[in-house]
Parts: sequence; structure tokens; C-alpha cells
Amino acid sequence: MGTRVAVAGASGYAGGELLRLLVGHPEFELGPLTAHSQAGAPITSVHPHLVTLGDRVFDRATPEALSQAELVFLALPHGESAAIAKALPPHVKVVDLGADHRLTDADAWAAYYGGEHAGAWTYGLPELPGQRDAIAASNRVAATGCYVVASTLALRPVIDAGLAEPTDVVVVAASGTSGAGRTPKANLLGSEVMGDVSAYKVGTHQHTPEIKQASGAASLSFTPVLAPLPRGILATVTARPTRPGLSSDEVRQALQAAYADAPFVHVLPEGQWPRTAATYGTNSAHLQATVDKDAGRIIVVSAIDNLGKGAAGQAVQCANLMLGLPETTGLAINGVAP
Amino acid sequence: MGTRVAVAGASGYAGGELLRLLVGHPEFELGPLTAHSQAGAPITSVHPHLVTLGDRVFDRATPEALSQAELVFLALPHGESAAIAKALPPHVKVVDLGADHRLTDADAWAAYYGGEHAGAWTYGLPELPGQRDAIAASNRVAATGCYVVASTLALRPVIDAGLAEPTDVVVVAASGTSGAGRTPKANLLGSEVMGDVSAYKVGTHQHTPEIKQASGAASLSFTPVLAPLPRGILATVTARPTRPGLSSDEVRQALQAAYADAPFVHVLPEGQWPRTAATYGTNSAHLQATVDKDAGRIIVVSAIDNLGKGAAGQAVQCANLMLGLPETTGLAINGVAP
Amino acid sequence: MGTRVAVAGASGYAGGELLRLLVGHPEFELGPLTAHSQAGAPITSVHPHLVTLGDRVFDRATPEALSQAELVFLALPHGESAAIAKALPPHVKVVDLGADHRLTDADAWAAYYGGEHAGAWTYGLPELPGQRDAIAASNRVAATGCYVVASTLALRPVIDAGLAEPTDVVVVAASGTSGAGRTPKANLLGSEVMGDVSAYKVGTHQHTPEIKQASGAASLSFTPVLAPLPRGILATVTARPTRPGLSSDEVRQALQAAYADAPFVHVLPEGQWPRTAATYGTNSAHLQATVDKDAGRIIVVSAIDNLGKGAAGQAVQCANLMLGLPETTGLAINGVAP
Amino acid sequence: MGTRVAVAGASGYAGGELLRLLVGHPEFELGPLTAHSQAGAPITSVHPHLVTLGDRVFDRATPEALSQAELVFLALPHGESAAIAKALPPHVKVVDLGADHRLTDADAWAAYYGGEHAGAWTYGLPELPGQRDAIAASNRVAATGCYVVASTLALRPVIDAGLAEPTDVVVVAASGTSGAGRTPKANLLGSEVMGDVSAYKVGTHQHTPEIKQASGAASLSFTPVLAPLPRGILATVTARPTRPGLSSDEVRQALQAAYADAPFVHVLPEGQWPRTAATYGTNSAHLQATVDKDAGRIIVVSAIDNLGKGAAGQAVQCANLMLGLPETTGLAINGVAP
Repeated sequence: MGTRVAVAGASGYAGGELLRLLVGHPEFELGPLTAHSQAGAPITSVHPHLVTLGDRVFDRATPEALSQAELVFLALPHGESAAIAKALPPHVKVVDLGADHRLTDADAWAAYYGGEHAGAWTYGLPELPGQRDAIAASNRVAATGCYVVASTLALRPVIDAGLAEPTDVVVVAASGTSGAGRTPKANLLGSEVMGDVSAYKVGTHQHTPEIKQASGAASLSFTPVLAPLPRGILATVTARPTRPGLSSDEVRQALQAAYADAPFVHVLPEGQWPRTAATYGTNSAHLQATVDKDAGRIIVVSAIDNLGKGAAGQAVQCANLMLGLPETTGLAINGVAP
Repeated sequence: MGTRVAVAGASGYAGGELLRLLVGHPEFELGPLTAHSQAGAPITSVHPHLVTLGDRVFDRATPEALSQAELVFLALPHGESAAIAKALPPHVKVVDLGADHRLTDADAWAAYYGGEHAGAWTYGLPELPGQRDAIAASNRVAATGCYVVASTLALRPVIDAGLAEPTDVVVVAASGTSGAGRTPKANLLGSEVMGDVSAYKVGTHQHTPEIKQASGAASLSFTPVLAPLPRGILATVTARPTRPGLSSDEVRQALQAAYADAPFVHVLPEGQWPRTAATYGTNSAHLQATVDKDAGRIIVVSAIDNLGKGAAGQAVQCANLMLGLPETTGLAINGVAP
Repeated sequence: MGTRVAVAGASGYAGGELLRLLVGHPEFELGPLTAHSQAGAPITSVHPHLVTLGDRVFDRATPEALSQAELVFLALPHGESAAIAKALPPHVKVVDLGADHRLTDADAWAAYYGGEHAGAWTYGLPELPGQRDAIAASNRVAATGCYVVASTLALRPVIDAGLAEPTDVVVVAASGTSGAGRTPKANLLGSEVMGDVSAYKVGTHQHTPEIKQASGAASLSFTPVLAPLPRGILATVTARPTRPGLSSDEVRQALQAAYADAPFVHVLPEGQWPRTAATYGTNSAHLQATVDKDAGRIIVVSAIDNLGKGAAGQAVQCANLMLGLPETTGLAINGVAP
Repeated sequence: MGTRVAVAGASGYAGGELLRLLVGHPEFELGPLTAHSQAGAPITSVHPHLVTLGDRVFDRATPEALSQAELVFLALPHGESAAIAKALPPHVKVVDLGADHRLTDADAWAAYYGGEHAGAWTYGLPELPGQRDAIAASNRVAATGCYVVASTLALRPVIDAGLAEPTDVVVVAASGTSGAGRTPKANLLGSEVMGDVSAYKVGTHQHTPEIKQASGAASLSFTPVLAPLPRGILATVTARPTRPGLSSDEVRQALQAAYADAPFVHVLPEGQWPRTAATYGTNSAHLQATVDKDAGRIIVVSAIDNLGKGAAGQAVQCANLMLGLPETTGLAINGVAP
């Protein structure tokens, strides 16, 4: 008998990836899988790839239903998880894939999301210093945003090691379309996105304050780019060195040291740069770094699967820790490629 | 201690998918992983998604090296596996992903491949009547060609049930580009294939005689189409009903009956048509059928992952049977999507 | 002073391609460009590629506005053009890109579209025998459906020449996503269609009776396939030869003879098969044919741009003829590739 | 009788786009179209989209052949155009699409390209101050590199207006695969690039010194990204404001002023960000800018077609100026989309 887990928001892309991971997880047993508008519809009518769930329909989302589980994943649009979370008994463990409980700064919440600030939970990025234990000791965990994972894993160790200035950080990150969700919009139609690369929310994206909070950046320019692929984020993170002579090796060593015990983060062999395809379907992050002395910039590039390490995989990794399981349980390290 | 397995031709796309499956297989231990031109190169320099193999290089391909394994997978260009197979001791089990040992008809081999016919091994499509046992009893198995899997799973039960005429079968199948292999060619460049759908080898493709042999078709028109996706085959198979009043239900029931005990073959709910994305990364096949009475045609559509059920997954399924393991061991049924 | 032309339904994909062609047309002057829900919005907010229309907004769709033009293009969902057409004065020339006026058989209309049959106009496929003159003499022309263009150009000459049986024709055609329109639907999201090939409306697609009407096929199995590209249709058309010994040359010669004076239809050099990318942005159709003697099938493959020869290009070609202009005026023959 | 023009390197992607533009150019007549390895092959065997050239083969590349033209386009790999250029008589006008004659600094050439520096020609970016006249007065013009066009059009006016610091500029630019050329390489196969975004040549790309030379940047970090589309470059250019209070309007006005008379450069309406698809098949550049006060960065995003404004279109624009024709002759402003 595995641990009974539930999913609220199982009809979205993050929800679908969660279902795929939970079905394959050796220690979990599926409890309620809820969806709002899709309640009652067969799960395979929305997720035709999940054939082993062929006999199940989406359940109606009620706190009572979700409370039957020992651990609940919330994969809801921002602003919707706080209310449901409040209605769940304290003993029920909760991992929120949404933004509601990530930001510690109420003003930042108000400025980028609006509405009432629900308050911050334990931050669900296990690779941050001390965070693995904090997550293991928590009943409420807020999983990290997709762009934040890619940016923070690249930047945080370089700032912590005193190699990069925390000011004037520049991040440009390209994301696959699943990051924009499953709600039909004209600008997300295949006809629009195939053969197109575009910038959006330049300097105004809601992940900006979370990247600063998680990475230690004091000032940050963030430009998100929509690229024609279903999944994947490639983040190019640049920062100024704290001293002129800084070498690429020193930066690579800082990354290697920070992730020596992190099973999902891989600093690639020198000369090999990250590609999103290599992380497809995984909870892995691939990193590479260099120092451009002429430019006076450290450049760290990271690649993740936005639905994996950027959403559902990360959430399962947190759940594993909260339940005392090995953090890699039920998660893939090797990508599905080509 | 798992069963020691080896791979010859580990640097190609089928070889890479084999490595991914073998690494995740609970009963296998990796023996020699050989490649011809790439021998000595790090595996991750060719397959950056296989990070857990980061410490290994491709081995040189010699019969001695391969003979150290209990089971050898041959993932080589056609015409190359026969020689290596002959050099392996009889007690070493072999699964050939190539074409050399599939065709029983030497003339068909000569007409479509040329060169000497190596003779036929046990045919590696476990879903064919009686084939599961035949494979389990064999030391030499020839895994099915990718287009052949998609076409045969759709057609064979309908012919066997006496519902479709074996003559004048028409198959049009669209394949992702990985089916064309990893050897650089101008017509396979991303710039050429993205945004393009094209027909090739119309009426002359080398899988034609194999489809006839495996499906029972007496005459067959086969048009392969190259589509802009890395993986996946969607086959549209049409045949003439043996009697006027044939209903879609009768065809669907024939398929359901044929695959009642086949864990990887899924006849979709009525009204839901196969899509390749739902099979991505799996060993599954999705089927749907209808009868167009006006047209006088049965239409069966199938979707597979050409590197999964169409190559590496199929080969592992055969290996599981040859080794007395459950045929689903180490293979995915649910796809990675979107 | 060019001819004043108007467009109803300028905010869709066919409408957008029409605008692109009309802006570049040397003999046309833009009159009202109407859209229903988008009326008042800047044209570039919907079609950012049409920068030279940066100062215009979509006009409100009223018969009065449209009547100011000498020729009106109707690019509306089926069922909507008939009403507007009735409200336009007889002297105003009209080209309907929709389906309302294509079918001569009211029963076929009722069976595949439903609602009242508006009656048939002159059929807008200039490459059909005698049709060029018929279009030139008409004030009301119904442009051909996208799948119908691709299928009919491939099939009609082979039936007319008595080489192919009109019964038991099989057509499988892959289309880019723009053929499904600009209305947001979950199954058309980039996340869903990229990396996916799927079948839909198998044996039930509304273009089936129109293909039969235009091509002379007596019975026809039609399977539409959605492929991951924005534009393009590749149709594989197979039919039974009327006599055993029929050669590929005879079929190719029938096609060459039929299109000797057709500037947009190109029978490719022997051995070269059509690819949709070569027709991107054009009003061209590429054809190739073979006879598979073993299979007993003639196979003709055609490629077009579904928004070009399949919609807007075709409509402009008809308009050119109706206005006594060279039919190639303002239309591209060479594709934009890669 | 138009001006007789020749192309050396007509079999590559830039060469193919040149042919497409030259065929449609009202003032040009096609002279020799040469290719090295492909000499004697039908042009449509390499460029199947150029059907109107169906009767021509690639000519052998000799100075004698090229000298028959009044103007010669050189579309050759870097290092190859200098020798051919030297062999052409001075009265023959030459536009070099390659890198050989772009850089004024011999050391920069040696550091990034190697080999002997051929010296600099008139720089072929007409939108730079005074450059339109310089090009019109020249017989030898070096057209701009693709990444350089996208980066320089975004950055130069902001530096010239004294709004941006020339130091510590950061450019991250995503390019379609045609920018990597038509030579078959495994990393450029469709199977590799579809579904993948990757970084390459980080901090070492050969366009870096040219961007500095053309844009006025004193120090520059440049990260090129390969994206899964055939054509298009989206460049995100960030620089530090020269004063705290700088507004987005001031930056937008500087761009609008710089390009008031530039028919191909479009500063988009406020709030609308560039997308490469809108420039497909054109010689246009789309720009948008903002100032992120928190980050202390000006951000300018530009989109072009790398084969259009980034290569062949730019070259034709220069040729138009060199021949005293309107610079827009034979070039598209509106894109082909979707």
C-alpha cells in the first residue's frame, strides 16, 4: 500500500505531467484527481498519452475529496491554490505548484500578481543550501516557478561563492509553449508558434521577483522568449565578475561544488553547452559556464524541462523529501531524445 | 546481478533509445556498448541526454567483446548484422534491430535490399498469433521494421478475421525524421524538414515485402511520408471489406479480440483517433478503425513511436520474452506529452 | 487607379493571406477589409506581418460597405457567406472562399454541412477543363476547398484520360494547422500539434463530396491528417488502373498534357517527389506520379500551400480571370524556402 | 533589358534566397549562377521551390564566367570570396555576403576567422548613418552578418543618441537553423534540432567583433542560441542607461528618429514585441524597446529573417543602391505568415 496522493488541477499540462509521474511512482497510490471544468470527463479525453488511466474520470475538486489523501499536489492557476490550501487539514501534506505561496515579500506579490498575499511556504527548490532539510521538515511546500528553477540553479552558487556581483544580472530565457498553459489562446495556436520566436512580458514577467528572492540577485533584467517547442527552458544568465581575473574554471568549480550531492543537476563536460532536448521528460538540469573577459561577464547557461524540473518533477522531488523517500524516487534523470 | 546485455551500433538513434531503456531496465546490467566510427568517444558526446552514462565511452565492436554478454542487441545498418551474428557463439542470445534476418523470401531480399540473403530468424513481433511463444523459445530474433509494426498491427487481425480482402491494401504512413537515421544528409537537415511534409520511395520502400509477409496482405500499395517531428509513425491502412454490410464495430471487435492480452496495444475509445504524440517514448501502439460504406473501404489508423515499438522498445520486449521476464519489464506504456 | 476590392473575413488565416496578396497586387486597390469580432482593431494587431497596413483597422462587415467594391472576397466560416452574398448587388463580382456555393448536390450539402443549401456558383478551379473560360464569364465564383485542390489536380486528368478507375479511389492528405483556422481550440495549441501527427474526421470530412464532384471519382475514401507545420498539404491519391500494363510514363504524360497551359501546376522531373515546403507562399501545385504494378495502383502525390493555391491564391487567380487580367498577376510561383 | 547579375555560391541557403529574389526582381537579368560541387546539376534538384528556374543548371564558378555580369553576388563560405573578388575586373560591381571584407581590424579577423585579412570594403548596412550614400558610391560592398544586422539595428541608435553606455552590452540572439548553412552535420539534423533549444559558441562567436564595429559597443557579451525554426533571428539587446531617469519613450523615439527614412525598419506600436514569423521572407526588421528601471537596463528586441535582411535581402538592397535603383526594388516588406 503506497502513500495516497491527490492532484487538484489534473487537466492542465503540469497536472498531466504529474499524473504521468505519479502513475509510475513505486511508492504512491492515486487518490482523487480533480479538475474544475473537466470534472466527469475521462482523463484520456484530455491526456490521451495516459492510457493506463483509461478507466478513470476527473473528480470534482472539493476539499473533502482532496482531504482523503496523505499528500495533495495543487496544480492550479495562481490565485486559486490559497483558498483550497486553507480548507485542507494541517496533517495533510501539500505541494503547491502554483505561485501563491512562493514570495516572501507581500509588496512584490501585489506588484506582480495582485490580490491578497497568501503568505510564503517553505520554498521548494531542494538544491538551495539547507533547503533539502527544510522541505523534509515541512507540511506545506511551494514548488519553484519554471523560469526561476533554470535561472536560480545557474546563478545562486556563483553569487554565493562571491564570484558574481548580485547587481545588474541579465537573464534571457527561451521557453517551450507548454509553459503558457493549456487554455486556448490565439497567440498559442500551433499556426502562430511554429516557425516563430518572440519576446513577451519584457522586464515585467511575474517570475522576476522570485528569481531575485531565490538566486540572491539584487537587480535583474529578465526577458522571456517563446520558442517553437512543446517543452524546455534554456536560460542564459550573465553577471559581472567580482574581480577582473576570474576564470571559467573557478565558475565551473563553484557550480560543481554546489551540486556535488544533487542527483538532478549536471555540470556538463567543458565545451559542451546545454540543450533542452537532453532534459526532455526528466527532472534534470544541465549547466555550463564561461567567463568572457573582453565582455566582463560571467555567462551560465542552463537547460531544464519546464514541466519536469520546472513543475511536476520538482513537485514530486519535494514530495519524496516530505515523505522521507529518496528524492530521486519515480523521477527520470536521462532524457527522451531525439 | 542482472543479465549482462550488449549493444552493437549504440551511436545511432535506435542504439541511443536502446541505451536509455537498458539503463532503466531493472533486470539488465550493461555490457559492451559498441560503435564503429565513434569507438573511444564519450557516450554523452553523441547522446547528451544519457547523463548517467557520463563515465562511459563507446567500445570497439568486436565479436569477442560482444560475446561477453548473455544477450546482444544489433542496431546496425542493413547488411551489417549478418556477419557479426555469425561470429557470435550459439548460446549468446541475439536480437537484431536491422533488416537482415526478417524476410523469409530470398527473392524479396534481393529485390529490395540486394546482396546475399542471410536467412530468416524468428520474427520479433510478439503480438502476432503464436509469436510470443516462438520468440520466448528462440536464441535469434529479428525485430520488426518500424513501418511494418504500425501497418501490421492495424491490418493483420482484420485479414485474419476474414473481414478484409488481402488484395489491394493501401497504406500511407507518415514518419518522424529519426526513422531516417543519424547519418548527416542534406535532405534531413532541420532547415529542410521543418515546415515540410514530403513523400519518398513511393511504391518502392524496402519495408513493403515485410509488411506483406507480416500482415498477410497479398498486394499492397505503400507510400511513406516524411513529417516534421523527431519521432512517431502514423499509418493509415485501408482495405476492402469481404462483404458489403461490414460494420465499424465488427472491425473494432476484431482488433480488441486480437490484442486482449497485449499490454502495449490499445484500441482507442470510439471516436478518438490515434496521435503519435500520445505514444512518445513508449512501446505502445494506438489503434482506431472505421468502415466507410460509401467508399467501400475499411480504414484502420495506428500510431507508434518509431524508436520505441518501432525499434528499441520492440527489441527489449523481445529480449524480455527470450529471458523469461514479463514482457513489459523496463518499458513505458504511457507517453511523454505534450 | 486599380480595381477596388474588398475582403469580408479579413482577420482569419485565409483572410490574412488574401490581404498579403492584395497589398502586393499591381492592379488592385484596397476597399473595405471587414471582420466581425475584430472590427475597429488595428489589422497589425492580428496580422503583425502586414506592416504596410499599419495605419488601417478592420472595418465593420456590412453589405453597404462591401458594395463599394468592384469585387468582394468572402473568407467566412461555412454557412455565413450565402447571406452576405445575397445582399450584394448583382454587378458586384464575388469570390467565395467558403464552402457555401461549391456543391451542386443539395443532399451532399445537407449530409456534410447541414442547413439550407445556398446553391452552386461557377466552380473556382481554373485548371479544370473549360473552367478558365467559365470563371472569366462569371460574376459569382466559389473557390475550391484546400484538400479538394490537392486531390483533384492529382486525380482528375488520370480519370479523364481513362487511365484510372473512378471507383475505389483512396486519398490520404496531410495538412498544416492553418487549415483548421484561427479560432482558439485546445487541440490546435502549439503544445498539442508540435511533435504530433494525427488523423481526424476519417471517412467523414466535409470535403469528400466536393472531391468527388470536382475529380470525377465515383467512390472515394478520404483520410485527413493533421501535421506539425503551419501551412501545406501533401495529398497521396491512389486509384486502380483501367488496364494491367499501364506505365508511369502514361500517367505522367496525362498530367503534363492536362497542365501544359497551367502556369501554376508543375509535374516534377521523374524521380523527384513533391514537398510542401517548395510551395510555401505560392499559388503553385507540385505533382508526381507512378504506377505500382505489384500493388495494382496508380499513385499521384501533390503538394500545395493550403492558404495559397488552397485558399487565397486560388481566389486571387479566379479574380484575375473575372477581371480580364493575366491569371498569374500578383501571385508567386516560386516558394519561400527553407 | 535588365542589369545582368551573377551569383557565386548559388547552391547554399543564402544563394537560394538570392536566386528567389533575383528571379522576382523587375530590373535584373540572370547571368551565371555558379556552384562548386553542384556545377552541372539542375538548380531545382537543390532548390525545388525555384520551379521557374527548372531549365537551368548550376554553372561552373570561374572569374571569366562571373565577369560577364555587371554585378556579382558572392555567397561563399568565409575565406573563399577574397580570392574570387580579386580576380574580378574593377568595373564589375561586387556584393559579398560572406565575412571576408567586413572587418576593418586585421587583428579581430585573425582572432575570430584566422588566415590573411583581405581588408575591408564599404560596409553594407544601409540603415547606418551616411551608409546609404557610401554604398551607392561603391563598387565593392561587404553585406552585414545576420546576427550583426539584428543586434546593430537595435543598439546603434541608442548609443548614438547618448542614451546607452557603450560598455557592458549583453546580446542573446536566437537563430533559425538556416543560419548554420546547408552542409550536412549531425547536430543540424531535423531529429536533433526539432524540439530543442541550445546555446553554442558562447562568448566566442565570430560575429562579436563585427557587432562591436557596427554598433559602437565598446564591450559586448554575445550568446547565440539555436532555435527550432528554419529562418529568423530574435535578438535581445540590453545596455545600461547613461542616466537614471531614462524613459522607454526616449529610447523608442531615438529608434523612430534613426529609422524615419528606412523603409525596412519598423518600430512596433507600444506593447507589441517582435516575432520572427512576422518577418519571414522579407527584408524587414521589427524593433521594440523598454527601460527596466529596477534592473537598470535598456532592452531592445529585434526580429529579422536571417536569409532576408540578414543575408540575401540585405545584399539586394545594397545592389539596388549601387545601381541607382530604389532600395526597395524587388524586396518584400510584409512577411509570409502564419
